[in-house]
Amino acid sequence: MEPGPSPSDRARPVGRGPKVRAAVLAATLAELTGGGYAALTVDNVAHRAGVHKTTVYRRWKDRESLVVDALGEHIAADIPAPDTHAVETDLRELARSLVRTMTGETGQAVIATMLSDAVRVPEIADLRRRLFDDRLRRSRPVIARAVERGELPAGTDPDELLKTLAAPIYFRLLITAETVDETTADDAARVALAAARAGALNRPREKP
Amino acid sequence: MEPGPSPSDRARPVGRGPKVRAAVLAATLAELTGGGYAALTVDNVAHRAGVHKTTVYRRWKDRESLVVDALGEHIAADIPAPDTHAVETDLRELARSLVRTMTGETGQAVIATMLSDAVRVPEIADLRRRLFDDRLRRSRPVIARAVERGELPAGTDPDELLKTLAAPIYFRLLITAETVDETTADDAARVALAAARAGALNRPREKP
Repeated sequence: MEPGPSPSDRARPVGRGPKVRAAVLAATLAELTGGGYAALTVDNVAHRAGVHKTTVYRRWKDRESLVVDALGEHIAADIPAPDTHAVETDLRELARSLVRTMTGETGQAVIATMLSDAVRVPEIADLRRRLFDDRLRRSRPVIARAVERGELPAGTDPDELLKTLAAPIYFRLLITAETVDETTADDAARVALAAARAGALNRPREKP
Repeated sequence: MEPGPSPSDRARPVGRGPKVRAAVLAATLAELTGGGYAALTVDNVAHRAGVHKTTVYRRWKDRESLVVDALGEHIAADIPAPDTHAVETDLRELARSLVRTMTGETGQAVIATMLSDAVRVPEIADLRRRLFDDRLRRSRPVIARAVERGELPAGTDPDELLKTLAAPIYFRLLITAETVDETTADDAARVALAAARAGALNRPREKP
């Protein structure tokens, strides 16, 4: 393995580079959506982006770097945390926003790749953790505010509550392949809120 | 594609066939565990099972049939539903049994394959749904008994409760890659029970 340009080196001046970069990353996501990680080749990505293969290899050392970069770009998109001054609507908005992200075409490509054979690429496994950690970090203040307003027990564990909110959505997407829509989001919010109010998501939790 | 022997044709008399069959299916699961679906070849399976490649092709027409059959065999294992006469311990036992299945080496191979690029094989997507439907069917009586004993609201939706129980376990296995153990199972049981008792898992659920 020879050292290639760092895939996360986004600041270097490349002339028309940003356009090429955007086209190649968009083509990578499109290839992931269409054929999955196993079928993705640099050739196909270059063809779809309308660039020469050598242009791709000048910036990304292999298809793994390309996929990591395409997914990372998608993850970096800013997701604002809701602040409706009521925990019920805040949780519902968080859940609906997750549903929108995950059911969009790009979201589906992202999740499919993160769970596909690509997960054997360590950088992609790391990225999956980073994706979720980032979402947690952005959403924690929503729970903290609800606790401050006295809408949730003082001991509520924000991370446990946020995972309880997200879990049924991922579960339906990945395991049961049921329709995932606003009702799914609202159901998830209602369940997480009931559990939190009952103290079932308090920290520290009892051990058996 | 020429017609091959049906992979689910388990009853035909094949002499030493059952042993060969078991060895090939075990080798298939081992290959899935080791290298994943994308890397699995009939050659490697035959080599690991200590049989000739033609022996494999005599029984399975391609690697997809082989994988579907290996996963199906694993799924067919009977999982008894608990009956401890208390919903708390019943839910905990259901969750712990799911954790045991999914964290065992074979369970991990099964789940990894079902979510890998193999999911583009329609038979494998079907199998995933069958796996979960089968678990639901076996577990519904547990919830029905709890409702009869008055431990859960009369309107409790058994499937929603069982999905709420399973979701955080799959979520931690697949998304956050956290340790999944008895505490995870017990936490999941406590959350699902609190939500059910609060009526958040009642049927019909309110729509927005």
